Amino acid sequence: MDSNLPTFQDILSSAERIKGKAVHTPLLEQPFLNEMVGGRLLIKAENLQRTGSFKFRGAYNRISRIEAKDRKNGVVAYSSGNHAQGVAAAAQLFDITATIVMPRDAPKIKIENTKFYGADIVFYERHQPENRALFAEKIVEETGATLVRPFDDRWLLAGQGTVGLEMVEQAKQMNAPLDMVIVPCGGGGLVSGIAIAMAELSSATEIFAVEPEEFDDTYRSLKSGRIESIDPNVTSICDALLSATPGHMTMAICSKLLNGVLTINDKQAEQAMHHAFSRLKLVTEPGGAAALAAVLSGKIDVYGKTVGIVCSGGNVDEDVFQHALAIG
Amino acid sequence: MDSNLPTFQDILSSAERIKGKAVHTPLLEQPFLNEMVGGRLLIKAENLQRTGSFKFRGAYNRISRIEAKDRKNGVVAYSSGNHAQGVAAAAQLFDITATIVMPRDAPKIKIENTKFYGADIVFYERHQPENRALFAEKIVEETGATLVRPFDDRWLLAGQGTVGLEMVEQAKQMNAPLDMVIVPCGGGGLVSGIAIAMAELSSATEIFAVEPEEFDDTYRSLKSGRIESIDPNVTSICDALLSATPGHMTMAICSKLLNGVLTINDKQAEQAMHHAFSRLKLVTEPGGAAALAAVLSGKIDVYGKTVGIVCSGGNVDEDVFQHALAIG
Repeated sequence: MDSNLPTFQDILSSAERIKGKAVHTPLLEQPFLNEMVGGRLLIKAENLQRTGSFKFRGAYNRISRIEAKDRKNGVVAYSSGNHAQGVAAAAQLFDITATIVMPRDAPKIKIENTKFYGADIVFYERHQPENRALFAEKIVEETGATLVRPFDDRWLLAGQGTVGLEMVEQAKQMNAPLDMVIVPCGGGGLVSGIAIAMAELSSATEIFAVEPEEFDDTYRSLKSGRIESIDPNVTSICDALLSATPGHMTMAICSKLLNGVLTINDKQAEQAMHHAFSRLKLVTEPGGAAALAAVLSGKIDVYGKTVGIVCSGGNVDEDVFQHALAIG
Repeated sequence: MDSNLPTFQDILSSAERIKGKAVHTPLLEQPFLNEMVGGRLLIKAENLQRTGSFKFRGAYNRISRIEAKDRKNGVVAYSSGNHAQGVAAAAQLFDITATIVMPRDAPKIKIENTKFYGADIVFYERHQPENRALFAEKIVEETGATLVRPFDDRWLLAGQGTVGLEMVEQAKQMNAPLDMVIVPCGGGGLVSGIAIAMAELSSATEIFAVEPEEFDDTYRSLKSGRIESIDPNVTSICDALLSATPGHMTMAICSKLLNGVLTINDKQAEQAMHHAFSRLKLVTEPGGAAALAAVLSGKIDVYGKTVGIVCSGGNVDEDVFQHALAIG
């Protein structure tokens, strides 16, 4: 593991690195949502990112930093699906092979797209998570490929941090300095990267992570001061946020820079997906809508505040989306 | 009617006028869609515009040009729903009243949002279209309000033309000069405005309008050289594109600047909505997806071409969207 935490300079250089490859996603505002909460909500639409989630940023940045002699041996990653697509699409741009270890029950759109970007997929069963790292390590050993970690990596995190860079710039253009930024949280890579950017550019901005109720490993880890893990028997529709533990690097960053961790349940995620459909015209996946869900369900008081909300992904199967529209 | 056609300079000044009010919508690219057609598709996501469609641009621009002494008397418009919301939201920003004459069977989201932006709604029955202008004229007479026409107006068209301005700039940044631009067409306001911008900035770009099969009034009018109208008994799910005739100004522009008119059916619109959901993470309404539908269903050969496609709106009720996902 790369034990160097990313710096603000790393984020700036990563923004240059991904320019023209990653989408400069819009920061959207919708009066209807503002009125619901009595604040000003600015939605960073990372579901519109290449591969349908923010993960492309870090993956492309990370792969671009591998030395050419190593890079030709390809890359390996394990992921429930969004990091998978990010790595696969980035590898394709560098014309190298990617092998992705994925849970067999990942959403079919995530499996299909990862294949589309030319990656080889190796499946593991979600109830045997020990096989995930095992399979990945075996491939690294056999092929000399580089492992692209989902969050505990300096350049991965610096890539995700470019989301924060853009949000600050865009909010400034809208004359709307950010009082808070609220970010979906699985392993904590996105919120960590954003927090580093905000600490430099907008240090008065409060930063909150949002986890599914049953997957509150970051919340509990920050509270106890050590890496806590998730009961392997729980589940949530937020498939992008089901990491069993936070990372070591992300914990180091979050413990310094986060103002709090909020939690949401599946119903609240679905309601937020419905609002994103009706009001923002955005397709979001359950985990991608977690931060919006926390705000719309009143998990945090945003009255009178200007709040940046990251919609982190939109890779959702039809049946899940239709269910959200039906009940929301 | 204002008989002065808008100029390219009018579009430039309108871009300044709407800056900071209208969303600078992204131009999105998705490799999956490119592969389907063998070309490069750049999607202008006007469904992410304020009020969920491009109509806000023209409405805000038009209202901003009314002299203050007249503007205080408010505005009136007739619309099936997107122009309605654009006018209502713009009027709200100018703190003046808006009265909108709408068909009673407009999508409920369009009615609800128009009310949300503070407008008064007067309903007419779609099978009695003569009442639409009648009701609007009566309100103008009684209140001194200004009628904001849906397309036959210089500043309205100049506002819509800013979509073309942005597309050319964004395509240039992507090193992707546009061979073609394809635009949904009801009364022809959007395609006319865009065509004026393209004629100045990118005259080699071919411009195509897309109509629902049964609502091919622009196609037939361009062919016959006079204003043709639609059989009042036909219908389509593309509620945003059901104008009975093209406008006089839009015909004058289209007859000079259009390279052709394509048509699509309801099924093709729904399939495009489904692709926009899966691939672009965008919520589009049937009429908003018409240009994408024309390309994806092979109505025009885009092999090897770079094609700008406008997704013009995303105001769609849940049941219509769910149907598109189910059959697409």
